[in-house]
Amino acid sequence: MTPDLNSPIGIFDSGMGGLTVMAAIRRRLPDEALVYLGDTARLPYGTKSADTVTRYALQAAGALLRFDIKLLVVACNTASAAALPALREMLAPLPVVGVIEPGAAAAVSAVPAGPIAVIATEGTVRGGAYVQAIQALSPAMPVVQAPAPLFVGLAEEGLTGGPIAEAVAARYLGPLLDTVPRPRGLVLGCTHFPVLKDTIAKVAGPDVTLIDSAETAAVRVEEVLKEKGLLNPGPPAAPKFLATDAPGRFAHLGEIFLGEPIDPGAVALVDL
Amino acid sequence: MTPDLNSPIGIFDSGMGGLTVMAAIRRRLPDEALVYLGDTARLPYGTKSADTVTRYALQAAGALLRFDIKLLVVACNTASAAALPALREMLAPLPVVGVIEPGAAAAVSAVPAGPIAVIATEGTVRGGAYVQAIQALSPAMPVVQAPAPLFVGLAEEGLTGGPIAEAVAARYLGPLLDTVPRPRGLVLGCTHFPVLKDTIAKVAGPDVTLIDSAETAAVRVEEVLKEKGLLNPGPPAAPKFLATDAPGRFAHLGEIFLGEPIDPGAVALVDL
Repeated sequence: MTPDLNSPIGIFDSGMGGLTVMAAIRRRLPDEALVYLGDTARLPYGTKSADTVTRYALQAAGALLRFDIKLLVVACNTASAAALPALREMLAPLPVVGVIEPGAAAAVSAVPAGPIAVIATEGTVRGGAYVQAIQALSPAMPVVQAPAPLFVGLAEEGLTGGPIAEAVAARYLGPLLDTVPRPRGLVLGCTHFPVLKDTIAKVAGPDVTLIDSAETAAVRVEEVLKEKGLLNPGPPAAPKFLATDAPGRFAHLGEIFLGEPIDPGAVALVDL
Repeated sequence: MTPDLNSPIGIFDSGMGGLTVMAAIRRRLPDEALVYLGDTARLPYGTKSADTVTRYALQAAGALLRFDIKLLVVACNTASAAALPALREMLAPLPVVGVIEPGAAAAVSAVPAGPIAVIATEGTVRGGAYVQAIQALSPAMPVVQAPAPLFVGLAEEGLTGGPIAEAVAARYLGPLLDTVPRPRGLVLGCTHFPVLKDTIAKVAGPDVTLIDSAETAAVRVEEVLKEKGLLNPGPPAAPKFLATDAPGRFAHLGEIFLGEPIDPGAVALVDL
């Protein structure tokens, strides 16, 4: 089959964090059909090697192709950092949108004079993808970065505010924001982190602008679909969810990230 | 090949937490050769379904069989809870030692009048394996349990003491230890947790006895090898390590759990 206007947008993440990107796409493009795959059996990707993440991402893309998708969103910073070239090669001519380039563009646009700080997973920090993407747009931009792995556990436990979340945020942000000159923008470089936005903003203070790539990824999806003449006039089909393990847990915890209830009956178990 | 005295003991965990069990076995049985497999590509197991954990555990056991092991230690509470019967069936007549039964026996022996509290991963708590194992030994024993997922992240980040670790411990232990009558024993039902022992003891207070299944699992390994006449008179071969992803990270973080340095050159990458 060849994808058409009514074909769904495929969205892929290691787990549930990418649902923050799905939520942004739903707000911006309410007429699009969406199919989301969370590789919950093998999460987290953030501590894995780039080779392993690439292999897993290609398998996930293969599973989404069976839904005749018209565009793939890699709603995972770690997978965007490691696997975007391999995914584009495998899926061509199907467009593939990652979250790193939109996040970098949003950061440069929000604080053009910089400096920019980035918090992300270990894997994303190690690969330096945000530093490269930001400096591709603004070569002299100072960028500092640090991993914030406990944010993932806090987000998944719904522990998004209160003294523990604030203490963890202070631990990660303190050294990063104490660099001189002080960063004016802070990229939330993991799709789990937007649910901690209020706590991160409180700890970072009012002079630091938070940049969440979910919104700008949704803008990029709209641009690409417009370019290709593939925007769906609607009405959309109901969203579909796929998980590689524990679909009940996916439906339950996914609400934290999607910001609306997920019908457990709409979550199918798939093996990659 | 048939295993003999010089054959290694195989030790398996989802990641690095099982190294606390390996450390206990090394202290108790310094003449034994040990080969450790951490399924770092697919950790954590604690949030996965029992079926998926069982499938992964059987694959890991298969990889260790290639080293002609004489006994398998399942140094992971989640895998012990989900996969022990399937592993025993696959490996028979090779003995398989899990960590749940030794932990339950140690708890009943330490606080025979109870009550006993258990902290573990989501998967171990959901399956109720500790409750069953404790009540198999002491049918009227009151047991309360709760998941403590953030402890895994704290342990892996080496954040084992200080205000964040104490606040997280208070969050998990408070409701559990406030049950009436107050628990007198606390089982650390995840092999990640012993590295947080000092913080957990401080928060639990002096009237609560901590039970760590690593030591009692090592005692059980010694008993089984003695029964079978398979104790190695020594000297032992150097320990071997296998990881399914990121062997460098395994060597680096593994030190926290093993309590001694791991030579990165001794960690081999395996695919399951």
